[in-house]
Parts: sequence; structure tokens; C-alpha cells
Amino acid sequence: MTGYTVAVIGGGQLARMMSEAASALDIRLRALVEAKDGSTGLVVPDSHVGTARDHTALQQIIQGADAVTFEHEHVDAAFLETLSVPVRPSSSALTYAQDKLAMRRRLTELGIENPRWVEAATPQDVQAFGDQVGWPIIVKTPRGGYDGKGVRLAYSPDDVADWFSGVGPGGLGGNTLHGNLLVEERIPFTRELAALVARRPSGEIRAWPVVETVQEHGVCSEVYAPAPGLSPALAERATKIAGLVAEGLDVTGVLAVELFAVEGPDGGRLVVNELAMRPHNTGHWTIEGAVTSQFEQHLRAVLDLPLGQTTAREPWSVMVNLLGSELPDPRAAYPEVMAQFPDVKVHLYGKEVRPGRKLGHVTAYGQDLEELKARARAAVALLRGQG
Amino acid sequence: MTGYTVAVIGGGQLARMMSEAASALDIRLRALVEAKDGSTGLVVPDSHVGTARDHTALQQIIQGADAVTFEHEHVDAAFLETLSVPVRPSSSALTYAQDKLAMRRRLTELGIENPRWVEAATPQDVQAFGDQVGWPIIVKTPRGGYDGKGVRLAYSPDDVADWFSGVGPGGLGGNTLHGNLLVEERIPFTRELAALVARRPSGEIRAWPVVETVQEHGVCSEVYAPAPGLSPALAERATKIAGLVAEGLDVTGVLAVELFAVEGPDGGRLVVNELAMRPHNTGHWTIEGAVTSQFEQHLRAVLDLPLGQTTAREPWSVMVNLLGSELPDPRAAYPEVMAQFPDVKVHLYGKEVRPGRKLGHVTAYGQDLEELKARARAAVALLRGQG
Repeated sequence: MTGYTVAVIGGGQLARMMSEAASALDIRLRALVEAKDGSTGLVVPDSHVGTARDHTALQQIIQGADAVTFEHEHVDAAFLETLSVPVRPSSSALTYAQDKLAMRRRLTELGIENPRWVEAATPQDVQAFGDQVGWPIIVKTPRGGYDGKGVRLAYSPDDVADWFSGVGPGGLGGNTLHGNLLVEERIPFTRELAALVARRPSGEIRAWPVVETVQEHGVCSEVYAPAPGLSPALAERATKIAGLVAEGLDVTGVLAVELFAVEGPDGGRLVVNELAMRPHNTGHWTIEGAVTSQFEQHLRAVLDLPLGQTTAREPWSVMVNLLGSELPDPRAAYPEVMAQFPDVKVHLYGKEVRPGRKLGHVTAYGQDLEELKARARAAVALLRGQG
Repeated sequence: MTGYTVAVIGGGQLARMMSEAASALDIRLRALVEAKDGSTGLVVPDSHVGTARDHTALQQIIQGADAVTFEHEHVDAAFLETLSVPVRPSSSALTYAQDKLAMRRRLTELGIENPRWVEAATPQDVQAFGDQVGWPIIVKTPRGGYDGKGVRLAYSPDDVADWFSGVGPGGLGGNTLHGNLLVEERIPFTRELAALVARRPSGEIRAWPVVETVQEHGVCSEVYAPAPGLSPALAERATKIAGLVAEGLDVTGVLAVELFAVEGPDGGRLVVNELAMRPHNTGHWTIEGAVTSQFEQHLRAVLDLPLGQTTAREPWSVMVNLLGSELPDPRAAYPEVMAQFPDVKVHLYGKEVRPGRKLGHVTAYGQDLEELKARARAAVALLRGQG
């Protein structure tokens, strides 16, 4: 018999928002956090301080839990595999979120459309690939990247020379600073989409409406749900890709598949950009905008409980991230934000302000997409101190 | 300058649901709870164990808070008045929620329609009132009642003889076991309504749609939002009464006014039954059903922040309470509840099962009121172990 205690590795805003959903369902959340006064530590009594690679701390929070999950991929999958508690997503699935080379290989095997890509061990490999597909190209460190870190646009191998700085004279095989690099063609996309699904260990899958995402310097800044003007056929194709990835990689919990939409005949192409196996920034709109939020769904999925309905509650939901602020405390804008936007939902994560940091988000929902965008952006501008 | 730390007195489900809303807005909640493993203690890290009448414990949680509020009325209002932190609702307003005689007196002064009532110091007073208005009558202990406790239907003074057991030969003035009693005519109501409003210290008031409530043995069991078939005129009148009460009693925070609807000419009469100055069971539907939940609104109000929009998000919301369960742990029904009702929202409060105890509630929302009632009741039946 399964119980209802979930251990989550990570003390950021994702575990924090998970805790809000956990409270409603009386799912007991236990968190391994970086600090007691961080996003999650502030709101989860059963928080323990430690890093995701600290085996003693991990053992501690896993004790008595019914499932272990994460809010980021930077965990020791091999160690997690040795635990008696179900790890969801499993460490074998997690590999594909941790290692972008492994992900590309696996998606290629599954016949899912990727950008053209190679594994580069040397600057010469980068040069050869760029010459083949056309410059500039995208170069990625397979591990440890997030929010645009570990991703570069390269016009020549010189643009990633520092990533090769550990290379010896032979120059082959895993001897860069970051292991071999992932090199991809630059996709001439018209826009970016995200397909969010959740999957239970027993196989049930539910998909939310496909959304459009807007990135700024590699960081998600806005999300429109559903993706405006997306044809039903393309939406279905995006959802199908996410389902194939969830099944092909045996993902449990929430899976976000970020896609490039490329114009072309027959409605155009969809190409997989990135994956995340956890609640994701592109799914924050589901808190108010969908019948079941991604945070509730993730908890249900990792406990192998039946999944909730994922339909949108409103014609449009718009999410805008608060990335940094000129205010020492964005809450100082509450009197103004709340007076001007009594129907906009504000989420702040309890983080100290740092330039560009994800401090919170706002969601506006309703009938008129352009007006919702304007309202959500104006609310965020106030929280940013730019009112 | 106000900060964003709210101290709440009480460790039950209301403070728990307040904490879910607080987390989203990064309002720091501090709670005075009965036990660390109670509803609120389980989810609020900054919980302190103590009773609402323990002055040392109160001082402790109030230290550094920007406002103090409650989830029940059983607090020492006189002591709270001595604190330097704003108490919301103020102790003078709270008096009317604590003392039903004071409430009736004040509402009568304000010209708001009450049942006919008197203050009874002796069984003779009860007899005389019953003979005047007609038996049976309603007798209430002015203080300490909740969920039907302290309220009796009396066919003669004998039915409340035990409440007078401390009365001496003189038999006058505050010498019953409970102080003088409140005696009210029995209102031949056709149904019960509740008008929920929130008010800021600076005066702003917002009202949610008026709801119909169903009581079982004096305990709220179901709520339909908005009240089915309520004429706009009567809805407006109910809302106006709640606004008058909020202003007349200088309430801050959420105020629930429970009303009897009586058939009659001109759409019938509305008579005030009870008041509560806090988030209330009749407002739980607002979590999913309204743009701003009563829990978020209460926090905004007690911090004197602008109030959120209170419009309903759906044609109908139905809330059904889970009162007791035959299951040792109602969560054992999750696999079935979630599979059968993927769109019903379940809330469990982390309480141990006891007969008739408020353990949680479910909310169903959508287009078809009768179908929503059936779904919500069936979900609750499963959680009750009666599937």
C-alpha cells in the first residue's frame, strides 16, 4: 500500500508551488533544500538542508517517503537507483534530462524529429559540422545547463574555445572541460511551443493544451495558453510527440517538451529543442488556468494516483515571469499592482532579488489575449519597479 | 510601511488554507497552533504551540508581525487590544462575533433585520418569550458556540434547564451557567443563504456572489454558488446587509453573514442568523470558484492591501463537506475518487478521523448544477468510505 509522503530534492520555487498543491490534498511533502530561508524552506516544515549530491542528506529525507522526486536534474541518478523508495522519474529516464547527448541519441532512435546534431570531441568536429549545416550553429554542454546557461550560438569553433580548454594534443573523446559537446544546427523557427504532459508509472498520460513560449536570453519570459493560432493538427502533433517522449523515455511525473515550430508545407515542422522531467516554467499558467495544475498532477503521478483533468478553464491564460527587480522587495509594489489589477494572480517565490533572477510570475486569464498580455506585462513591470 | 508577516491564531483548516494562499503571495504566515501535527502545524514552518488565551505564546507569535488575525473567535479580545500590532478584525469588532447578545443589540441598532429576540436571565424569561412569539424557540449561549454547539431548539424552558443550573433564588442578571442567554424566535425559513464580503481597514469592500448553504445538525454540509434561483434584487439585498454589517461593526478581513430567506411578498425577507469574522466554510468554494479566494482576500484585507476581484469563474460551484469518515484515512479513497472524478477538487485538512469531524471538502464546478451536486456528493461518499 502506498502512502502519501513525497520527498522532493530541491528548495526552489517548483518545490514551493508543489507544496501548495500538496497541502490541499494532504500529501506530506518533505524537501531537501539549500537553505531554510529559501523558497521552499520558508513554507515546508519538513525541510532538511543539504545538497542533491549529499548522500547522507538524501537518505534522511527519503526515510519513510513513498516516492522521491526532483525539481531539477542535478542529482546523482546512480545513487538514487540504490534506494528502496521509488524514484520518479526513474534514474534511467532522468539520464535523458541530465545528458543532452543521451537525449538526442534516444530521440533519434525513437524517430522523433531533432535538429541535425553531432557529438563534438574537438574544435575540428565543431568546424566540420558548421561547414556542413551552415553557420552559425548551436553548441551545448550536455550536462549542467539551465536557463540558457551551457548553450551558445557559435559562428566558429573559437566561440566555444574555452569549453575545449582541457583538450590535449590528441584532441579526441571526452577530453573537453565538459565532456564531449552537443552541436546542433540552428533551427529557423517561427516560434517556440511547449507540450506538457504527465504520466503515471502505470502508464496513464494526460496532456495540457500546447502553449507558445517566448524566451529572452535563453530564459522563458512569457507563455500563452493555448498557443495562439495553432492548428488543431499541429497541436495534436505536438501532444503526440510529448506522449511518445514520455513513453519512449519511460518518464513518470510531469514532462515538458520544448519545440521549435518551423514554417513549411503541410502546416510546418515541429522539432524538439529541450526536455524537462518535472513541473516546468511553461506550465505555471496551469495553477489558475487548468482544472489540474502541473504541481498537483506531478504529485499525483509520482504517487501513481489517477491523473486530474487537464483542460483549460479559460479561453486564454498568459503567464509573464518576473526576472529580477529594481525594487529591493517586489512586494513593495503590491498596493499598486493589486489596486490596478484586481484580477491578475501574482506569485512571488520568497527569493532575494538578484539581477535576472526568477523571482515570481503573474498569470492573467480571460477572453482577450492582447489585453491579457498587456495587463500581465504591466503588473510585472510594477513588480520590477518600472511602473 | 507595512510588511508582509501575518500572525494567525488557530491551527485548524482555515489557517491551513490561508497558508496556501500566503505562500503564493509570499506573505509570511506565523501560526499559534494547538499541535505541531495539526492541520496548520503540518504545513506552516513558523508555528508555535499554545492556546489562544496564553498571553506569553501570543506575545511570541505577534513579535515582528504586521497584523494579527484569527481563524476562530475564542480569543482574549481585551488582551489583544493591548498589543502594538494591528489586530484585524479589531477587538471591538470581534466582540460582536464572540457575543451573540452584543451582536443582536448592535444589528438592531443598525436597523438590520434580526429574528425577534430577548436576553433571558431566567427560565421565566424564556417562558414569557416563547409564549409571546410561539413555541418552539431558539435558545443560544451567547459565547463559545460553533457548528451547532450552544444552540438549541426549545419547546419549553425545561429544554435548556441545564444552562440555568447556576441560577440562584433571585434569578436575575448574568447568573446562569453561561451568562444570560439569547432567545430568538424560530424563523420559518425556506432556505439559508450566506453573504461573504471582505473589508480593508481603509474601507474598501468586495463581495462574493451570495450562496445557498445547507446545514445538517447545525453544521454546514453543502454550499451552492451562486444561490440557485436567487433574484438579483434579493442577492443585492443580501450583499447590502453584509456590507452594512461590515461597516456598522467596523469589520476588517472576511465577514460571513448567514441569512434566513423567508418567503413572502416582494421577494420575501432576509433575516440575519449568524456572523463570522474570518474565512468561513460557506466560502471554501472561492478557492477554485472565484477569481480571488476568501483566504487570499483575508490576508490582503488584514494587511490593508487592495482587495482582489470576487466574481465567480464558473456558472456553478458546489462545495460538499467531508464530515467524518468510516475510513481510518480518507486518502485511502484517492485512487477511486481521482479515477472517477478527475475534475473534482479534493481538499483534506490533515486531521485525524473522528465522528462528524470536518476532515475536508470537495468542490465541483461547471455548467450543470444538479450534476455537480451529484458528483461532489459521490466523491465525498467515497472519502467517507461509503462508495
